[in-house]
Amino acid sequence: MQFGLFGAAQAQRGGPDVDSAAGFKDYIEYVIEAEALGYQSAFIVEHHFTGFGQVSATLNLLTWIGARTRTLRLGTAVIVLPWHNPVLLAEQAATVDLLSGGRLDFGIGKGYRHNEFAGFRIAMEEAEPRFEEATDIITKAWTSNERFSFHGRYWQFDDIIVEPPTIQKPHPPFWQGAGHPESIRRVARRGHNLLLDQFASLEETGRRFTTYREAIVANGFRFDPAQVGVARAFYVVRNDAEKEAALDRRLAAQRRLHAISQRPDGNNTASIMAFSDTRAASEESALYGNPDEIARKLETLRDMGVEYVLLNGGGTSRENLRRFAKEIMPAFRTEPAMRAAG
Amino acid sequence: MQFGLFGAAQAQRGGPDVDSAAGFKDYIEYVIEAEALGYQSAFIVEHHFTGFGQVSATLNLLTWIGARTRTLRLGTAVIVLPWHNPVLLAEQAATVDLLSGGRLDFGIGKGYRHNEFAGFRIAMEEAEPRFEEATDIITKAWTSNERFSFHGRYWQFDDIIVEPPTIQKPHPPFWQGAGHPESIRRVARRGHNLLLDQFASLEETGRRFTTYREAIVANGFRFDPAQVGVARAFYVVRNDAEKEAALDRRLAAQRRLHAISQRPDGNNTASIMAFSDTRAASEESALYGNPDEIARKLETLRDMGVEYVLLNGGGTSRENLRRFAKEIMPAFRTEPAMRAAG
Repeated sequence: MQFGLFGAAQAQRGGPDVDSAAGFKDYIEYVIEAEALGYQSAFIVEHHFTGFGQVSATLNLLTWIGARTRTLRLGTAVIVLPWHNPVLLAEQAATVDLLSGGRLDFGIGKGYRHNEFAGFRIAMEEAEPRFEEATDIITKAWTSNERFSFHGRYWQFDDIIVEPPTIQKPHPPFWQGAGHPESIRRVARRGHNLLLDQFASLEETGRRFTTYREAIVANGFRFDPAQVGVARAFYVVRNDAEKEAALDRRLAAQRRLHAISQRPDGNNTASIMAFSDTRAASEESALYGNPDEIARKLETLRDMGVEYVLLNGGGTSRENLRRFAKEIMPAFRTEPAMRAAG
Repeated sequence: MQFGLFGAAQAQRGGPDVDSAAGFKDYIEYVIEAEALGYQSAFIVEHHFTGFGQVSATLNLLTWIGARTRTLRLGTAVIVLPWHNPVLLAEQAATVDLLSGGRLDFGIGKGYRHNEFAGFRIAMEEAEPRFEEATDIITKAWTSNERFSFHGRYWQFDDIIVEPPTIQKPHPPFWQGAGHPESIRRVARRGHNLLLDQFASLEETGRRFTTYREAIVANGFRFDPAQVGVARAFYVVRNDAEKEAALDRRLAAQRRLHAISQRPDGNNTASIMAFSDTRAASEESALYGNPDEIARKLETLRDMGVEYVLLNGGGTSRENLRRFAKEIMPAFRTEPAMRAAG
């Protein structure tokens, strides 16, 4: 198995007494240590207008991390395509790939938070067609060595060649989150890699993994388990009190994210996150426990074919990062193969 | 006086034998050495669809450079506002400022190359109003601690707060290029810093400097000569043959840039670069020569009040960089003061 990280840094806003950079710097040092401990990747979110400083310029933070690391894969989870001019985005992502020696994992999504659509004044109903069109343009931009024009519904470009070239060929792997079988099959039709969310049960995760594997093969692509990143919350505890406290923190964080994603009518159907709000469901899906408990869950995932787990510690606890690396990783980790391009 | 650099890296496109990253990496090592030699800043261009790999994602390259340096100011010269969603751009630039500890110099322009406007399908006639509107939005985004809405002609946003906060307060300095007196006065009305181009004669540069100083004061701002960056080509030569060769290279490069900026009708009125295409004019404006010749020109600039010179070597010659730093800089350099926010 391989282990990566996914999560977010936060930049606090405040007066002269607040060091707004502290949250970003702490996160950067966290992933630098993670690389040294054997973690393979860091996937970072993109969000806007949160009021509590979630990362907005994801590719800039990843660029900085790229300059401070040597082997860590630099992932986005996910860049929300409807916000971006797809050609500028292709240039920015290619620059990160070029500077990092081909370490970009380009996770993309169509967005799900009402307040972000409202802020950018983009209709939520356009999320899907905007996503599809932007994906087409970015793919074309990265693979065309000749000038081309593109006249879409939302974007038009004439006689352009997109620079710089990416290092990874034909292009950096695309990653997409999906849960419903039909969504998973759509990801497989493009040959993109798959991100599975941290909230689904182990059993449901196994079903989704199988759906993707079958669909990838049915579409004529070679299947590599490294193309599926399974997100899981993780916390290596010393006792039951630590476990209960971690569960409490997780449920509170879930409630906050649920609230911020909400539409005014309370009906947020576009969320890509399955939301499991019972404590039992949260405990089942999360890798919270002592090393033996966590190992048993990882064995279950491995038995289903999963070989790539993306861990979210709900913060930047170095102790948690080190415990997992030293007490759990050695029994599961295999040397990384070349990641398949999606 | 203070000395910075301005210029561009290039990422060559090609087959498997071409290391496309080589040009960027060479430029990065060049500015890292420049920092060690006492240069204070690196200003980088933004261009698109050139076919020869000019920097497109300027803030990403600057982010990487920021992570590899400690004191170097990170300048854009210039980000072309009409291409960008101003809120995404404000987030990206703020992230660079935050991560670098407040080292961003935010140079902005309205664009002048026909093929870029054509590629993005933006009417050149909209360059000016788009520039003004984007500048207003970015300034608001950086200075508002409360949610706000903006309903402009080209961009609309509802109930947004732009994150992360910048480190520099009230915001990173804006820099603008200008040459005509009325354009210079417009820059001064906003209180922005001024970039003067490398092609104007010393005498004309002095007139423009004076126009800006008077206009800044007339608008109620404090004048600091560090707010004016005077661009100059530089090449420290050992003999006349080296000087002639450098002049030949410069004229060829000017012709290439002139051609790429051109409109199909041959009438590119929007260029921000004065174009001096005679060898004599080129020789007068450029800091090409032995250390004594260059020192005399710097003395002329200093006598006019100029205290900040942005040098362009037309490439990344380390020898040139070192010669200037060791043989010319010591007689002129003063310790940098805190740069005034524009």
